[in-house]
Amino acid sequence: MLATALAEARAGLDEGGVPIGAALYGPDGTLWGRGRNRRVQDGDPSAHAETTAFRAAGRRPGYRGTTMVTTLSPCWYCSGLVRQFGISRLVVGEARTFHGGHDWLARHGVRIVVLDDPECLALMREFTAARPELWREDIGGLGAE
Amino acid sequence: MLATALAEARAGLDEGGVPIGAALYGPDGTLWGRGRNRRVQDGDPSAHAETTAFRAAGRRPGYRGTTMVTTLSPCWYCSGLVRQFGISRLVVGEARTFHGGHDWLARHGVRIVVLDDPECLALMREFTAARPELWREDIGGLGAE
Repeated sequence: MLATALAEARAGLDEGGVPIGAALYGPDGTLWGRGRNRRVQDGDPSAHAETTAFRAAGRRPGYRGTTMVTTLSPCWYCSGLVRQFGISRLVVGEARTFHGGHDWLARHGVRIVVLDDPECLALMREFTAARPELWREDIGGLGAE
Repeated sequence: MLATALAEARAGLDEGGVPIGAALYGPDGTLWGRGRNRRVQDGDPSAHAETTAFRAAGRRPGYRGTTMVTTLSPCWYCSGLVRQFGISRLVVGEARTFHGGHDWLARHGVRIVVLDDPECLALMREFTAARPELWREDIGGLGAE
Protein backbone atom coordinates (compact mmCIF):
# COMPACT_ATOMS: atom_id res chain seq x y z
CA MET A 1 0.00 0.00 0.00
CA LEU A 2 2.87 2.39 0.72
CA ALA A 3 4.17 2.00 -2.84
CA THR A 4 1.24 3.96 -4.27
CA ALA A 5 1.65 6.82 -1.79
CA LEU A 6 5.41 6.86 -2.40
CA ALA A 7 4.91 7.00 -6.18
CA GLU A 8 2.66 10.04 -5.63
CA ALA A 9 5.28 11.69 -3.41
CA ARG A 10 8.03 11.13 -6.00
CA ALA A 11 5.82 12.52 -8.76
CA GLY A 12 5.23 15.60 -6.60
CA LEU A 13 8.97 16.08 -6.19
CA ASP A 14 9.48 15.81 -9.97
CA GLU A 15 6.86 18.56 -10.43
CA GLY A 16 8.67 20.89 -8.02
CA GLY A 17 6.04 20.33 -5.35
CA VAL A 18 5.96 19.18 -1.74
CA PRO A 19 6.87 15.44 -1.89
CA ILE A 20 4.08 13.92 0.18
CA GLY A 21 1.72 11.30 -1.21
CA ALA A 22 -1.33 9.44 0.06
CA ALA A 23 -3.82 6.78 -0.92
CA LEU A 24 -7.21 5.79 0.50
CA TYR A 25 -8.22 2.13 0.38
CA GLY A 26 -11.70 0.68 0.83
CA PRO A 27 -12.57 -2.01 3.38
CA ASP A 28 -11.79 -4.74 0.83
CA GLY A 29 -8.39 -3.26 0.01
CA THR A 30 -9.33 -1.71 -3.33
CA LEU A 31 -7.90 1.72 -4.09
CA TRP A 32 -10.54 4.43 -3.67
CA GLY A 33 -8.37 7.46 -4.37
CA ARG A 34 -4.73 8.54 -4.54
CA GLY A 35 -3.09 11.92 -4.59
CA ARG A 36 -0.16 14.11 -3.68
CA ASN A 37 0.37 17.52 -2.17
CA ARG A 38 -0.57 20.02 -4.88
CA ARG A 39 0.16 23.36 -3.16
CA VAL A 40 2.68 24.37 -5.81
CA GLN A 41 1.09 22.63 -8.79
CA ASP A 42 -2.44 24.03 -8.23
CA GLY A 43 -1.70 27.02 -6.00
CA ASP A 44 -4.04 25.31 -3.53
CA PRO A 45 -3.05 25.46 0.15
CA SER A 46 -5.74 22.93 1.09
CA ALA A 47 -4.31 20.30 -1.25
CA HIS A 48 -2.39 18.27 1.29
CA ALA A 49 -1.82 14.71 0.09
CA GLU A 50 -4.43 13.07 2.36
CA THR A 51 -7.07 15.62 1.37
CA THR A 52 -6.25 15.11 -2.32
CA ALA A 53 -6.59 11.32 -2.01
CA PHE A 54 -9.85 11.74 -0.05
CA ARG A 55 -11.20 14.10 -2.71
CA ALA A 56 -10.20 11.71 -5.49
CA ALA A 57 -12.26 8.98 -3.82
CA GLY A 58 -15.40 11.05 -4.40
CA ARG A 59 -18.58 10.99 -2.34
CA ARG A 60 -19.00 7.93 -0.13
CA PRO A 61 -21.73 7.04 2.36
CA GLY A 62 -19.16 6.13 5.02
CA TYR A 63 -15.54 5.23 5.69
CA ARG A 64 -15.74 2.37 8.17
CA GLY A 65 -13.03 -0.17 7.43
CA THR A 66 -11.03 2.14 5.17
CA THR A 67 -7.27 2.72 5.36
CA MET A 68 -5.47 5.99 4.66
CA VAL A 69 -1.82 5.54 3.72
CA THR A 70 0.42 8.59 3.77
CA THR A 71 4.17 9.02 3.35
CA LEU A 72 4.34 11.47 6.29
CA SER A 73 2.58 11.78 9.64
CA PRO A 74 -0.58 13.81 9.00
CA CYS A 75 -0.83 17.46 10.10
CA TRP A 76 -3.77 18.57 12.27
CA TYR A 77 -5.86 19.35 9.20
CA CYS A 78 -5.47 15.87 7.71
CA SER A 79 -5.64 14.23 11.15
CA GLY A 80 -8.98 15.98 11.58
CA LEU A 81 -10.05 14.54 8.23
CA VAL A 82 -9.29 10.99 9.42
CA ARG A 83 -11.13 11.51 12.71
CA GLN A 84 -14.17 13.31 11.30
CA PHE A 85 -14.87 10.80 8.57
CA GLY A 86 -14.19 7.77 10.72
CA ILE A 87 -11.36 6.36 8.61
CA SER A 88 -10.45 3.17 10.50
CA ARG A 89 -6.73 2.77 9.89
CA LEU A 90 -3.82 5.06 9.18
CA VAL A 91 -0.50 3.87 7.77
CA VAL A 92 2.27 6.46 8.14
CA GLY A 93 5.46 6.21 6.06
CA GLU A 94 7.53 8.19 8.56
CA ALA A 95 7.03 10.54 11.49
CA ARG A 96 10.57 11.83 12.07
CA THR A 97 10.66 14.92 9.85
CA PHE A 98 7.19 15.94 11.06
CA HIS A 99 5.28 14.55 14.01
CA GLY A 100 1.62 15.26 13.31
CA GLY A 101 -1.60 14.06 14.89
CA HIS A 102 -1.26 10.29 14.72
CA ASP A 103 -0.97 9.87 18.51
CA TRP A 104 -4.17 11.89 18.92
CA LEU A 105 -5.88 9.67 16.37
CA ALA A 106 -4.72 6.54 18.19
CA ARG A 107 -6.36 7.88 21.36
CA HIS A 108 -9.57 8.30 19.39
CA GLY A 109 -9.67 4.74 18.16
CA VAL A 110 -7.88 4.89 14.82
CA ARG A 111 -5.52 1.96 14.23
CA ILE A 112 -2.07 3.41 13.49
CA VAL A 113 0.94 1.81 11.84
CA VAL A 114 4.16 3.87 11.60
CA LEU A 115 6.55 2.25 9.14
CA ASP A 116 9.64 4.44 9.57
CA ASP A 117 10.34 3.86 5.89
CA PRO A 118 13.81 4.98 4.73
CA GLU A 119 12.61 6.17 1.31
CA CYS A 120 9.88 8.38 2.80
CA LEU A 121 12.40 9.73 5.28
CA ALA A 122 15.03 10.49 2.62
CA LEU A 123 12.48 12.30 0.44
CA MET A 124 11.40 14.63 3.23
CA ARG A 125 14.91 15.18 4.64
CA GLU A 126 16.16 16.30 1.24
CA PHE A 127 13.10 18.43 0.59
CA THR A 128 13.04 20.23 3.94
CA ALA A 129 16.79 20.98 3.61
CA ALA A 130 16.45 22.23 0.03
CA ARG A 131 13.15 24.18 0.33
CA PRO A 132 12.70 25.23 3.99
CA GLU A 133 10.47 28.21 3.09
CA LEU A 134 8.09 26.09 1.01
CA TRP A 135 7.91 23.45 3.73
CA ARG A 136 7.21 26.13 6.33
CA GLU A 137 4.43 27.56 4.19
CA ASP A 138 2.90 24.12 3.69
CA ILE A 139 2.48 23.51 7.42
CA GLY A 140 1.20 26.95 8.29
CA GLY A 141 4.04 29.43 8.06
CA LEU A 142 4.66 31.58 11.08
CA GLY A 143 1.40 30.49 12.65
CA ALA A 144 2.63 26.93 13.06
CA GLU A 145 5.46 27.74 15.43
CA MET B 1 -18.44 39.43 8.86
CA LEU B 2 -21.15 36.82 9.36
CA ALA B 3 -23.19 38.30 6.49
CA THR B 4 -20.72 37.02 3.88
CA ALA B 5 -20.68 33.50 5.32
CA LEU B 6 -24.49 33.53 5.57
CA ALA B 7 -24.83 34.65 1.95
CA GLU B 8 -22.63 31.69 0.96
CA ALA B 9 -24.76 29.31 3.02
CA ARG B 10 -27.99 30.57 1.43
CA ALA B 11 -26.48 30.25 -2.05
CA GLY B 12 -25.55 26.66 -1.20
CA LEU B 13 -29.14 25.92 -0.16
CA ASP B 14 -30.43 27.39 -3.43
CA GLU B 15 -28.09 25.05 -5.33
CA GLY B 16 -29.40 21.99 -3.49
CA GLY B 17 -26.25 21.75 -1.42
CA VAL B 18 -25.34 21.66 2.25
CA PRO B 19 -26.12 25.20 3.55
CA ILE B 20 -22.88 26.06 5.33
CA GLY B 21 -20.80 29.09 4.39
CA ALA B 22 -17.49 30.54 5.51
CA ALA B 23 -15.16 33.46 4.94
CA LEU B 24 -11.51 34.05 5.82
CA TYR B 25 -10.40 37.59 6.70
CA GLY B 26 -6.86 38.93 6.81
CA PRO B 27 -5.36 40.66 9.85
CA ASP B 28 -6.57 44.06 8.57
CA GLY B 29 -10.12 42.80 8.07
CA THR B 30 -9.99 42.46 4.29
CA LEU B 31 -11.68 39.43 2.79
CA TRP B 32 -9.11 36.84 1.71
CA GLY B 33 -11.51 34.13 0.56
CA ARG B 34 -15.12 33.01 0.84
CA GLY B 35 -16.87 29.78 0.04
CA ARG B 36 -19.59 27.30 0.80
CA ASN B 37 -19.93 23.59 1.19
CA ARG B 38 -19.69 22.12 -2.33
CA ARG B 39 -20.14 18.39 -1.69
CA VAL B 40 -23.22 18.21 -3.89
CA GLN B 41 -22.26 20.89 -6.41
CA ASP B 42 -18.76 19.53 -7.15
CA GLY B 43 -19.09 15.95 -5.90
CA ASP B 44 -16.21 16.84 -3.59
CA PRO B 45 -16.38 15.45 -0.04
CA SER B 46 -13.46 17.64 1.07
CA ALA B 47 -15.26 20.84 0.09
CA HIS B 48 -16.50 21.84 3.52
CA ALA B 49 -17.16 25.58 3.71
CA GLU B 50 -14.07 26.48 5.76
CA THR B 51 -11.82 24.49 3.43
CA THR B 52 -13.40 26.15 0.39
CA ALA B 53 -12.86 29.64 1.84
CA PHE B 54 -9.28 28.73 2.80
CA ARG B 55 -8.63 27.41 -0.72
CA ALA B 56 -10.12 30.55 -2.27
CA ALA B 57 -7.65 32.67 -0.29
CA GLY B 58 -4.78 31.01 -2.21
CA ARG B 59 -1.23 30.49 -1.00
CA ARG B 60 -0.21 32.67 1.96
CA PRO B 61 3.03 32.81 3.94
CA GLY B 62 1.15 32.70 7.24
CA TYR B 63 -2.20 33.19 8.95
CA ARG B 64 -1.36 35.07 12.13
CA GLY B 65 -4.08 37.62 12.86
CA THR B 66 -6.61 36.10 10.47
CA THR B 67 -10.25 35.35 11.28
CA MET B 68 -12.30 32.44 9.97
CA VAL B 69 -16.04 33.04 10.05
CA THR B 70 -18.34 30.04 9.59
CA THR B 71 -22.08 29.64 9.88
CA LEU B 72 -21.69 26.36 11.81
CA SER B 73 -19.27 25.04 14.42
CA PRO B 74 -16.41 23.44 12.46
CA CYS B 75 -16.05 19.67 12.22
CA TRP B 76 -12.75 18.00 13.21
CA TYR B 77 -11.44 18.35 9.68
CA CYS B 78 -11.99 22.11 9.53
CA SER B 79 -11.01 22.55 13.18
CA GLY B 80 -7.73 20.89 12.28
CA LEU B 81 -7.37 23.39 9.44
CA VAL B 82 -7.71 26.30 11.86
CA ARG B 83 -5.21 24.79 14.30
CA GLN B 84 -2.62 23.67 11.76
CA PHE B 85 -2.45 26.97 9.92
CA GLY B 86 -2.52 29.11 13.03
CA ILE B 87 -5.69 31.01 12.19
CA SER B 88 -6.05 33.37 15.16
CA ARG B 89 -9.80 33.82 15.55
CA LEU B 90 -12.88 31.77 14.79
CA VAL B 91 -16.37 33.23 14.61
CA VAL B 92 -19.11 30.56 14.70
CA GLY B 93 -22.66 31.34 13.57
CA GLU B 94 -24.19 28.60 15.67
CA ALA B 95 -23.16 25.44 17.49
CA ARG B 96 -26.51 23.88 18.37
CA THR B 97 -27.22 21.69 15.34
CA PHE B 98 -23.60 20.47 15.35
CA HIS B 99 -21.03 20.88 18.10
CA GLY B 100 -17.65 20.59 16.42
CA GLY B 101 -14.13 21.31 17.56
CA HIS B 102 -14.34 24.93 18.72
CA ASP B 103 -13.78 24.06 22.41
CA TRP B 104 -10.65 22.14 21.42
CA LEU B 105 -9.46 25.14 19.41
CA ALA B 106 -10.07 27.45 22.37
CA ARG B 107 -7.82 25.20 24.49
CA HIS B 108 -5.14 25.58 21.85
CA GLY B 109 -5.17 29.36 21.86
CA VAL B 110 -7.68 30.24 19.13
CA ARG B 111 -10.01 33.09 20.09
CA ILE B 112 -13.57 31.84 19.69
CA VAL B 113 -16.82 33.78 19.34
CA VAL B 114 -20.08 31.80 19.15
CA LEU B 115 -22.89 34.05 17.97
CA ASP B 116 -25.91 31.73 18.30
CA ASP B 117 -27.36 33.45 15.24
CA PRO B 118 -31.04 32.63 14.59
CA GLU B 119 -30.67 32.67 10.79
CA CYS B 120 -27.76 30.22 10.83
CA LEU B 121 -29.72 28.03 13.22
CA ALA B 122 -32.89 28.08 11.11
CA LEU B 123 -30.96 27.20 7.94
CA MET B 124 -29.38 24.12 9.51
CA ARG B 125 -32.49 23.00 11.40
CA GLU B 126 -34.50 23.00 8.19
CA PHE B 127 -31.75 21.32 6.21
CA THR B 128 -31.03 18.52 8.70
CA ALA B 129 -34.76 17.78 8.97
CA ALA B 130 -35.26 17.78 5.19
CA ARG B 131 -32.08 15.98 4.10
CA PRO B 132 -30.86 13.82 7.01
CA GLU B 133 -28.98 11.38 4.74
CA LEU B 134 -27.06 14.14 3.00
CA TRP B 135 -26.18 15.75 6.31
CA ARG B 136 -25.03 12.40 7.68
CA GLU B 137 -22.84 11.86 4.62
CA ASP B 138 -21.32 15.33 4.96
CA ILE B 139 -20.08 14.69 8.50
CA GLY B 140 -18.75 11.22 7.87
CA GLY B 141 -21.65 8.84 7.50
CA LEU B 142 -21.71 5.83 9.73
CA GLY B 143 -18.14 6.45 10.82
CA ALA B 144 -19.11 9.66 12.59
CA GLU B 145 -21.35 8.01 15.15
